[in-house]
Amino acid sequence: MKQTQITLSQGSGGLESNLLLEEIIYEILGEVLVHSGEDAGVFDSKKPLAISTDSYVISPIFFPGGDIGKLSVCGSSNDVAMRGAKPMYLTLGLILEEGFEIESLEKILVSIKQEALMGGLKILSGDTKVTPKGSVDKIFINTTAVGEIQSAEYSVKNLAIGDEIIVSGAIGTHGAVIFCQRNEIDLQSDLQSDCAQLYPMLERLRECKIHSMRDATRGGLAAVLNEWAKAMCVEIEIDEGGIPILPQVKGVCEILGLEPLSLANEGVCVMAVPQGESERVLEMLHSHSLGKNACVIGRISKKVDNVKNARVIISNAWGARRYVEYPQGELLPRIC
Amino acid sequence: MKQTQITLSQGSGGLESNLLLEEIIYEILGEVLVHSGEDAGVFDSKKPLAISTDSYVISPIFFPGGDIGKLSVCGSSNDVAMRGAKPMYLTLGLILEEGFEIESLEKILVSIKQEALMGGLKILSGDTKVTPKGSVDKIFINTTAVGEIQSAEYSVKNLAIGDEIIVSGAIGTHGAVIFCQRNEIDLQSDLQSDCAQLYPMLERLRECKIHSMRDATRGGLAAVLNEWAKAMCVEIEIDEGGIPILPQVKGVCEILGLEPLSLANEGVCVMAVPQGESERVLEMLHSHSLGKNACVIGRISKKVDNVKNARVIISNAWGARRYVEYPQGELLPRIC
Repeated sequence: MKQTQITLSQGSGGLESNLLLEEIIYEILGEVLVHSGEDAGVFDSKKPLAISTDSYVISPIFFPGGDIGKLSVCGSSNDVAMRGAKPMYLTLGLILEEGFEIESLEKILVSIKQEALMGGLKILSGDTKVTPKGSVDKIFINTTAVGEIQSAEYSVKNLAIGDEIIVSGAIGTHGAVIFCQRNEIDLQSDLQSDCAQLYPMLERLRECKIHSMRDATRGGLAAVLNEWAKAMCVEIEIDEGGIPILPQVKGVCEILGLEPLSLANEGVCVMAVPQGESERVLEMLHSHSLGKNACVIGRISKKVDNVKNARVIISNAWGARRYVEYPQGELLPRIC
Repeated sequence: MKQTQITLSQGSGGLESNLLLEEIIYEILGEVLVHSGEDAGVFDSKKPLAISTDSYVISPIFFPGGDIGKLSVCGSSNDVAMRGAKPMYLTLGLILEEGFEIESLEKILVSIKQEALMGGLKILSGDTKVTPKGSVDKIFINTTAVGEIQSAEYSVKNLAIGDEIIVSGAIGTHGAVIFCQRNEIDLQSDLQSDCAQLYPMLERLRECKIHSMRDATRGGLAAVLNEWAKAMCVEIEIDEGGIPILPQVKGVCEILGLEPLSLANEGVCVMAVPQGESERVLEMLHSHSLGKNACVIGRISKKVDNVKNARVIISNAWGARRYVEYPQGELLPRIC
């Protein structure tokens, strides 16, 4: 009888571990895995490298628009893309709960493979642990992505007064989808998480001048803008009407009293570009399906003398102004 | 009142997350952390690189000779050292259970810092997740290490008939310590886990000819030798009397019926060196405290025609021979 659940002995480092690797993990990952049979993978690069790690603990592990596998590739890949790097390599650490359904693991591995193929990513090193029932919830994944910096390194240090702030797409979708799924709210719509790799869109920007870039994951747009403001002691002004939000996400936020600016994204980035550059950047972004809703939402308006006055101000169509707060409390644990 | 336990909001990506980072994590890690305030760290190298990832789920998190923090630095650092690389960079992914004691987190971070300082390692990227009570047991850590390959790349592909097999130190200590601690066996001794970074010892071997190297973690010496035998379709012969095992570990194994060859190590590596090279290698190893018990334990004796006949044979002083089995079943989950 075919085994349907993960057993503790599959984490032993012995025979059963090896069978799990050979018959399931290596088998499914196939050509995206550079399997050396060694303790470490090797690679070589003549360019400066960007590296980023993230652990993925999302619940539920399957959601409209993706699963924890797809998310774990997109999330770390996007983080290195935010430094102007082309994501090239991944490491993959799986922590599985004893009893986890092998069918679910297989689905997740297929997602990882598909997403790695799409991004041209190779998995250079992996690790699989199995822990007794109750010591981990189903599956956690850690990925570390390494990418080659293509031209200028994007950095918060480049932020300057006058920079225009661009978002690459409609915000809050991932957060809204997970929120609804966890609270069993039936959206009666086809709303999906925005979970996606950003580099294929961003590589078009190689000739553009970009000061800084961040993907707006946990804490959403509000967290990124507040961190930028504080890091460089500046004030950022945002136009509420200009922020792209899908009507379904707006609806969820209105009904449930959520702040879309604080909702997590997994396929939206925020850029600061020098004055005069936004037109060219938007043209490039609009030519990619992920960037068709990209737009300028504000600008870095002035220097402030004290980090306490480093703020993000949002104004609506009637001229009312308010601060965008740095998110506080925990709206939704295990969002990514 | 000072907060004593981790809260869910410290994983939100908002204000409280930021305070956990600024006031505890960045504060303790100090100069070993290259904190960029960006989504990814950057580095540069002119040499070929080795990369390895591992998740650490050990229980208990504090043990004689170390803790999960020290282990997470040593383990991944050792894996890249096994390819002939000097470990240089680390990424650090923490998954914390809601309610985890901040005092324990602080101790673990201090261990990480000390160990990184000792190895000259810089942490380039980090991630901290907090998950609700019951969805993770206390703390899991993932580290990915990156190292520069110094001279020849060690690889299983280099294994050749006649190669001598060296172990760098007494085996089974980590496994025995965790086994006793988990089963509340009082050793009445100062036996400690062998958890240590191997590179400081291995860098002395730069001028030596080494074919392949593996650290004998989960599955122990038995797993490494069986994997080597199968990978290259060879037979490996081992001399039982030559294997260094501390008397306390031998005692634990005899009383409990454990096989020391299958017990995990966290500071012992196995090397295959060409005939005639072992004397020079041993001389170098003996000059470092970690390698003072290093010795030749056997050799790759012959090629076999079929992977099924690729075996590890151990003989004792009376000439009795038996196979060293590839470990099966799960002796002790969460050993690392």
